[in-house]
This record gives sequence, structure tokens and C-alpha cells, in this order.
Amino acid sequence: MTSRPWVRNYDTENCTIGAALAIVGEKWTFLVLREAFNGLRRFEDIRRRIAAPRQVLSDRLARLVAEGLLRKVPYREPGQRARSEYRLTDKGRALFPVIVALLEWGNTYAVSEAGPVVQLTHRDCGAPVHQEFRCAAGHAVAGARDVTPVPGPGARLIA
Amino acid sequence: MTSRPWVRNYDTENCTIGAALAIVGEKWTFLVLREAFNGLRRFEDIRRRIAAPRQVLSDRLARLVAEGLLRKVPYREPGQRARSEYRLTDKGRALFPVIVALLEWGNTYAVSEAGPVVQLTHRDCGAPVHQEFRCAAGHAVAGARDVTPVPGPGARLIA
Repeated sequence: MTSRPWVRNYDTENCTIGAALAIVGEKWTFLVLREAFNGLRRFEDIRRRIAAPRQVLSDRLARLVAEGLLRKVPYREPGQRARSEYRLTDKGRALFPVIVALLEWGNTYAVSEAGPVVQLTHRDCGAPVHQEFRCAAGHAVAGARDVTPVPGPGARLIA
Repeated sequence: MTSRPWVRNYDTENCTIGAALAIVGEKWTFLVLREAFNGLRRFEDIRRRIAAPRQVLSDRLARLVAEGLLRKVPYREPGQRARSEYRLTDKGRALFPVIVALLEWGNTYAVSEAGPVVQLTHRDCGAPVHQEFRCAAGHAVAGARDVTPVPGPGARLIA
């Protein structure tokens, strides 16, 4: 994917990467999602895991609920007041490839000498799981250099 | 990937997702990378595309260079002073799956009625490109529910 002049003729204002980042483009939000994929659902559990300031976590959870990535489900421990736990919706679970892509990159480029902290395996057979690109014609696609971005139906030419 | 108790016994401090986010976990940084994949290399071109404040863009570019995701290459337009352009390194280009994952999610969940702005096609055959998961045994892996995270060599039990 080298310099492609066409892209500069199009507006970025409605870019869906930008729109995605407006929802999740922030470190604490990603960390909350990481813990949601780890199966953590409760405020205190998440807070302790990611060491977020209480107000920051509260804000990020509220935003993720408002955007429909998490849903609140009430629970009550014996002798305690009612609280909410936070569960991934389908929209939230669909971010799994983003988390995995960050993990795979981090496991290569931001890893300590000890090696990766988490590895992903196939639930059914236990073999390591990797992300890859494939085209609709069934070809394996190696990476950015084999991919050509083209304007989609929502692309707007700059006036 | 439902609640997995083992994960709570492990330290998050050296998590490679966290380490990746410490480098790229910020909206402007992602937008700079998006434009780098679009082939934009020059400060003014990038600034106009992402509408970043000059100082913010300057900071983010410096960070990406310091982390080895972009490299500076000098150029000089006739009659102008020498400037630098910014090119993706291999480490930067390896973030392509993160950008694509954001794009695919955005094209589904954060798209206007007009449809996606950009679509990815296979350079060789023109067919649409998608990201998928596959295990080393060759099985297609549908998503989070088919993936089991396991502790890697760098996992540290909480004392």
C-alpha cells in the first residue's frame, strides 16, 4: 500500500476508523474491553486489574454502555446493596479482532524478554490461533502491501 | 471466552496489550498511522487530513519515530528549507491488522447510512479482503467464543 493519490481527494470526516476511535480510541477503554474479554464483569474486579482511577473507570464504563458495547446486569451479593455487572454485547464482542491485533503486535514488538503473557489457542483443538487476511476469492493475503484500499459507497469527494 | 478464573491470578503489569497501548493507544496516533497506510508522509498533508492541532501532531509523530514505528527521511522542495517526511518502518507496518480490525468494526458498527468510506481489496485479484482467525492446525476460528487464552511464558502469578 504505497502512496495512493485517490485517497487525498476524499473526505475523512465520515471515516469509519475515526468513528470507531471516537468510541474506543483511548487506553482505558481498551483495557476495560480487554478485561471484559477476560471474563471480568464487576467494577471492583476491573478496577483492581487495570489500576484505573475510580472516576475514570466509571466514565469509561458509562460510555461503553451508552454506545452499546457493554450492558449492565444487576446482581446482589448477600447483605450488600444491588450493584451492576458489565457484560459484552454482540457489538462489544465484535471488537475481539482489535484486541487480538493489539495482542499479536504487542507480543512481537512490545514484549519483555520473558515472552508473551497471554497466548490464544483454539478452544476445540488447543493449537495457537493467529489472525490473518484472506480475500473473498480464497487467497491468503500477506499484509498491507497486498491490500489495495478502494473508495466505498460512503466515500465523499472533497469539493 | 467466558469467565476464566486463571486470568485473575496473573499480573497485568507486563501485559503486551497494555504495552502496545502505551505506544499507540490514543486517537491521534491511530489517525496518523491510518494516513501513513494511506501513503501520506508529509507533516502538512497529514495535518490537513486529520485536522490535528499542529503541536499534537508534532508530539505524536515524534513519539512514533522514537518508538521506531515511523522513520524520518529528509526531503527538500525547490526553494524551500529541508524538511522531513515520515515513513512506516516494518514495526509500524506490522500494525496494519489493528487498523484493519478498527476499519472492519467501524464499517459494521460505526458507519453512516451511505456505507463504508473505504473498502479493502486484494491487490492481485481485486476481491474484498477480510480479517479472520485460524489456528495452527488449519481450522477456521469464528471469534472470541472459540478462542481460549492461556498463560504464556511471560505470565507472572500474583504473589
